[in-house]
Amino acid sequence: MTAEGRTEVPEVLYTSLTAAVRRLVDVTIRSEVDGETVASATAKIDAATEELSRSLMPGSFGIPQTPDGRLLTWGNAVIGLRNALAPPLVVHHEPDGRAWADVTLGAAYEGPEGHVHGGICALLLDHVLGATAHKPGLPAVTGTLTLRYEAGTRLGPLRVEARIDRVEGVKTFAVGHIATPDCISVRADGVFFHPRAAVL
Amino acid sequence: MTAEGRTEVPEVLYTSLTAAVRRLVDVTIRSEVDGETVASATAKIDAATEELSRSLMPGSFGIPQTPDGRLLTWGNAVIGLRNALAPPLVVHHEPDGRAWADVTLGAAYEGPEGHVHGGICALLLDHVLGATAHKPGLPAVTGTLTLRYEAGTRLGPLRVEARIDRVEGVKTFAVGHIATPDCISVRADGVFFHPRAAVL
Repeated sequence: MTAEGRTEVPEVLYTSLTAAVRRLVDVTIRSEVDGETVASATAKIDAATEELSRSLMPGSFGIPQTPDGRLLTWGNAVIGLRNALAPPLVVHHEPDGRAWADVTLGAAYEGPEGHVHGGICALLLDHVLGATAHKPGLPAVTGTLTLRYEAGTRLGPLRVEARIDRVEGVKTFAVGHIATPDCISVRADGVFFHPRAAVL
Repeated sequence: MTAEGRTEVPEVLYTSLTAAVRRLVDVTIRSEVDGETVASATAKIDAATEELSRSLMPGSFGIPQTPDGRLLTWGNAVIGLRNALAPPLVVHHEPDGRAWADVTLGAAYEGPEGHVHGGICALLLDHVLGATAHKPGLPAVTGTLTLRYEAGTRLGPLRVEARIDRVEGVKTFAVGHIATPDCISVRADGVFFHPRAAVL
């Protein structure tokens, strides 16, 4: 039990649950089964939702702190272990300040036919550029973000990469891009702040 | 049956299925049930996925055309009827060229605690600004997009709104913002092209 009286659930069970929901999101888009089967699957999904809803935290997941001081970003829309909207991105940090993530995007991220939605490119770039300004326990928020779309980003494997251009006081200026196997498709630059310095 | 031999499924069944998946995504983040119940729900989800997977279109949904000439954007990451990542946004078009959508965002869209992820704001603005440049059967893609975050965007009800600033040849210059009940939280401007004129 946690300090709040919650039952501890092994992290791997949440990982499995969320991976199952991600697969479901994908096949919900691509399924070509008949109406009766769609209705039957819907009933199973509702039954799973009912089970999981027997005890719910109010509002949103937030960023709770574990007893050992770790910040849990499990609810995050880009990196959240428990958020099926998140691919999830696993962001790597290099000693020189670079941040990068390899990710493969499927049907759920589509905009133009066969291509990643331009706004999803913005979502990923916002997060990875912002990650260059993160410090342990002190995430950064976005001040400004500019995106230049140089080519369509095909669904499939991508690398999202960013580096710090310069730091001025509370502002981190970051630049980055999305690389497909063929080209750099989107370039971005942005300014990021730490929340204590930003107007939230 | 469609021309491709697919079984016609009433749209309302897809609407119900995807709404069920959206509820599941939400409670997957917020559930506080014990591990046994998590595992039981996961098994039900896997069973639903197995049913829906008995016949799958390859790749992604794309933007297929119906026999009566309508383009189906059901797979789209922002507006897709069958995409559980999409809130979905219902974009309204005004005679003067404005585009807007009211949407309520919950736990799945979180970045900073209790707030919409900055990249999700970018995703919605990209789509609604782009919608000002859409013509029937001719969607627009993003050339550039600039976002200015003026305040945190609280989870909850939002309005996303955009208008055309000017049109120069194949380029539509659009401006817009996200309004919360308290303030305008994010402003954006962007340039959008029609795919036939853009390098995809």
